Amino acid sequence: MRALALVCTLKPSPAESSSAVMADQILDALAEHGVERDVARVVDYDVRPGVAVDMGDGDQWPQLRERLLAADVLAFVTPTWVGHMSSVAQRALERINAESGETDEAGRPTTYGKVAVVGVVGNEDGAHKIVADLFQGLNDTGFTVPAQGATYWNSEAMNPRDYKDLDRTPDAVAATTSALAANACHLARLLQQHQYPGS
Amino acid sequence: MRALALVCTLKPSPAESSSAVMADQILDALAEHGVERDVARVVDYDVRPGVAVDMGDGDQWPQLRERLLAADVLAFVTPTWVGHMSSVAQRALERINAESGETDEAGRPTTYGKVAVVGVVGNEDGAHKIVADLFQGLNDTGFTVPAQGATYWNSEAMNPRDYKDLDRTPDAVAATTSALAANACHLARLLQQHQYPGS
Amino acid sequence: MRALALVCTLKPSPAESSSAVMADQILDALAEHGVERDVARVVDYDVRPGVAVDMGDGDQWPQLRERLLAADVLAFVTPTWVGHMSSVAQRALERINAESGETDEAGRPTTYGKVAVVGVVGNEDGAHKIVADLFQGLNDTGFTVPAQGATYWNSEAMNPRDYKDLDRTPDAVAATTSALAANACHLARLLQQHQYPGS
Amino acid sequence: MRALALVCTLKPSPAESSSAVMADQILDALAEHGVERDVARVVDYDVRPGVAVDMGDGDQWPQLRERLLAADVLAFVTPTWVGHMSSVAQRALERINAESGETDEAGRPTTYGKVAVVGVVGNEDGAHKIVADLFQGLNDTGFTVPAQGATYWNSEAMNPRDYKDLDRTPDAVAATTSALAANACHLARLLQQHQYPGS
Repeated sequence: MRALALVCTLKPSPAESSSAVMADQILDALAEHGVERDVARVVDYDVRPGVAVDMGDGDQWPQLRERLLAADVLAFVTPTWVGHMSSVAQRALERINAESGETDEAGRPTTYGKVAVVGVVGNEDGAHKIVADLFQGLNDTGFTVPAQGATYWNSEAMNPRDYKDLDRTPDAVAATTSALAANACHLARLLQQHQYPGS
Repeated sequence: MRALALVCTLKPSPAESSSAVMADQILDALAEHGVERDVARVVDYDVRPGVAVDMGDGDQWPQLRERLLAADVLAFVTPTWVGHMSSVAQRALERINAESGETDEAGRPTTYGKVAVVGVVGNEDGAHKIVADLFQGLNDTGFTVPAQGATYWNSEAMNPRDYKDLDRTPDAVAATTSALAANACHLARLLQQHQYPGS
Repeated sequence: MRALALVCTLKPSPAESSSAVMADQILDALAEHGVERDVARVVDYDVRPGVAVDMGDGDQWPQLRERLLAADVLAFVTPTWVGHMSSVAQRALERINAESGETDEAGRPTTYGKVAVVGVVGNEDGAHKIVADLFQGLNDTGFTVPAQGATYWNSEAMNPRDYKDLDRTPDAVAATTSALAANACHLARLLQQHQYPGS
Repeated sequence: MRALALVCTLKPSPAESSSAVMADQILDALAEHGVERDVARVVDYDVRPGVAVDMGDGDQWPQLRERLLAADVLAFVTPTWVGHMSSVAQRALERINAESGETDEAGRPTTYGKVAVVGVVGNEDGAHKIVADLFQGLNDTGFTVPAQGATYWNSEAMNPRDYKDLDRTPDAVAATTSALAANACHLARLLQQHQYPGS
């Protein structure tokens, strides 16, 4: 099994990123269940605006798409800006959503059988809302969401701190990430062995 | 297998309700896969405000809770008011969320292994947002969301009509409801046979 | 000038409530600008489900409605449950939304010229999303939203604390509440003197 | 008085855009009140990811920012993708939000006294949610929202059509756009003459 983490920070590599830290923790937790890891910082790629799988003309989404199609688990990780997922995250979601139209002979989108989990970090609040928007968008595209499939951290209101600057990962966050990984693996294995029926 | 539809219309029985129509269609589609049906109109019960499984003193949520615990699939159906799920839906969600704290010896909430699907109707827009808020709330509580686990209908903007008054169910909605049912059954059976590991 | 705070806690009086604390702070800040105060805990009233100004048969919303119509500023204060405004808040919003249909001879809803501000408290995250949902719902009904018309507090993620239990109000929250009050008063006075034109 | 419409379609000029059509209609309605018009399609500019007013190195947001600062009314217009505002809209919002930190001697952000209105189009549902997210984000940054400050159109659920392809603008949408313009002008004039007090 294989997991791809899409890190949707606004900051190109090699800048430090709280989203990247969270993504690594999710991949570490998945690795404990034998899942191979892949990670991409989306802003490092020239992902064109549009709603097709390939916008042509130098569009680099197809590179990321190939890695997405090779993955059994998608870990979608975003920072919180203005209380919302980042513009980079929404860009990735717009491109992923094109998979709804890419179906096999049984009418199943390419995403059927894949499991999606979500990670959110923020120096201000927004995690539950972003989880909501991502579950809806990813599930609409065909991903399955395992029980308690989100992990997150945000600072106290109006007291901004960054996840990457915490002395240590809070125990409750670490436990949530660990449970998310266990559930995602369990479900991805089941679906790998027993694909949805199709129409 | 057994499904419970919680119908979150604001209108007590026996008033006609678009949400009730949608719930029946979901249960019909599930029945084609051999799933037994149960349905409750939440507003017919005295569901007290609070975030415990039983608020005491005449609270009727425990009756609904018992039926929820007996179900493998939850179909949560709500109308759209002010662009949001109804107050009755949010009330039910607040009570369902108490299950996060009700865990078995392996630390699993009572909802683990149950599958949740969502139905939304509206004379105005709001479905995607309500699906988002419900997937997040139900998943946080422990439900698993199958691929394309939502069905919905809303009228064109500023041109209000009711789902229950349509001459016939639009084909696209019927197909979506049918796929939702197939996916929900498939996933619920897998989880019935292979429960999440617990911590 | 007069302000009504609608406190949307799930807890009936006289239980302590973080929302009530936040509402008092908003009313205190408004009082510094000479605004008279009124406050109601919505759950203490039998507010019936529905979308009319009076659902009849013992419905107590009309009592609250009268106080709302007498107010120049509405302070809508809600706790955060499951990442959303409370079911009591959504219930109040559904009833307030009926004012869209209550227009004067110039076609203006009863709410035109009134200013709405929002307060949110939570032991977990959700404030920005709830502010969004309330601004949209209240503005759609006819309220005007002053610059930076929201104040809020929520605890760090997965580290629940209650606003009412803080040793002191954080300076940033107090400053936000104070600015909100200054802006709300300024705008309400302007609109009192210069009502919207109507159609 | 002057209005800037930010058109947040994913499609670069000169492609036809439903958002551009809606923006023109809003500017037309504002022009009837003597408001000068400016319009920019954001995707035509190289707006860099980040949360500062100028990200340097060829960032073209500063050009748009200058026009924003010259405007009394901001008309923020976005399409609906995956039920959310577009990635281009969220990008613009992230950059606008930097104005919170750009304050005058009285501590007022550059946006104080400016009025924001929102237009949303979609071949699927999402308008109320996007209005919510934009009101919250723009108001947090310092914009004032006039009574009924949004206009929108979306097709019936699962029956996609584009606003630009409608034979004519539905009367209810036209009336809403017209009322939005009247309210926005009224409020912008009041605030032009009576700026918020500052701290």
